[in-house]
Amino acid sequence: MLDYHQQNHWANGFGGQQSPIDIDPKITIANQQSLSFSMDTNYHLTKLINDQTTIRLIGAGQAVIFNREFNLQQVHFHAPAEHLIDGQQYPFEVHLVHQNTIGQLLVVALMVNVASPSDQLNTILDHFDVNNDVDVNIDITEWLQLNDRTGFHYLGSLTTPPLTEGVEWIVLDAPALTISAAQLKRYQSLFAPNNRIPQPLNHRHIYKL
Amino acid sequence: MLDYHQQNHWANGFGGQQSPIDIDPKITIANQQSLSFSMDTNYHLTKLINDQTTIRLIGAGQAVIFNREFNLQQVHFHAPAEHLIDGQQYPFEVHLVHQNTIGQLLVVALMVNVASPSDQLNTILDHFDVNNDVDVNIDITEWLQLNDRTGFHYLGSLTTPPLTEGVEWIVLDAPALTISAAQLKRYQSLFAPNNRIPQPLNHRHIYKL
Repeated sequence: MLDYHQQNHWANGFGGQQSPIDIDPKITIANQQSLSFSMDTNYHLTKLINDQTTIRLIGAGQAVIFNREFNLQQVHFHAPAEHLIDGQQYPFEVHLVHQNTIGQLLVVALMVNVASPSDQLNTILDHFDVNNDVDVNIDITEWLQLNDRTGFHYLGSLTTPPLTEGVEWIVLDAPALTISAAQLKRYQSLFAPNNRIPQPLNHRHIYKL
Repeated sequence: MLDYHQQNHWANGFGGQQSPIDIDPKITIANQQSLSFSMDTNYHLTKLINDQTTIRLIGAGQAVIFNREFNLQQVHFHAPAEHLIDGQQYPFEVHLVHQNTIGQLLVVALMVNVASPSDQLNTILDHFDVNNDVDVNIDITEWLQLNDRTGFHYLGSLTTPPLTEGVEWIVLDAPALTISAAQLKRYQSLFAPNNRIPQPLNHRHIYKL
């Protein structure tokens, strides 16, 4: 029986809900809802920062995701990708981090394949400055085109410290965004691999979008 | 710089987002949205369980809360209350625990004062059996009447192990539900005080509903 006189000794379940994960499509649950995601006209990237292990871009604007309002907080990159899909690793993954007023986090992960170059990634790589933050004005709405919103939906964590749990993940496996081999090579020349290894799924459910 | 070769040694921020809290109305943020909460016709309690430190009732039905669908998972009680408001403790607190498909938790807390008896609490106390689960069919929609939805909205945790974080809290400070002195005494004769002590707010924001 739970002892209210020994509250400091209660066991907790922290750390059981971590990201990234290896998404096994065979155990995902069929979609009950398709992804609903819309952006306001102010949704864009405003500043480019050398985050030491990656490029981080400050975001502005709002998105309405599954009927809830979120602010675009920041966008950053992982190479190779952090999430695996059926054990397969994409070369590049983009995280679009959103937060609502009470502090709930929702990250949209774009699983990016090598194909055509991206104009926005060119702008980002061209403006990157190791030593200084750079003001930018980059429209990324075409990364989230309506027709390419297949993927997965699950509850996880930040993939870097403080590894906060209760983070909602939308992992898009066929986004409009692709990266060229030359762009990927440019990014890799700037940063060492920065992918956290997959974490145990434990008792979580993954929904197919 | 974050070392991707030493991922097992990364520091985490687990435990900084705990519930209950002492809600200081002076530092709450004015409401941007009023509480939107609607229940389907199946929203009710189905089974009464002796949970050793409290009575737990299994829930059925769905609620749409701030435009999101949740299932009513379970309802239980704390005496005295766990949340404080401006340092003041209510005698009784009801937790209505909701969960959505991906596993996000949302708890509606009713801060209950001593006044008129509640028909539903009478039914619950009358049917309570220390040794056996009891099937019930209790409509609690009047506990969540539209006119009495003032309170607070913040991000916290479960208040019992596993103390899971990322739990959305809606704390209603003037719910329609009250408890009579006799009902409270009956409950207290069954269970020792089961209130977790208030936890540090840290950097969280509390919104006024």
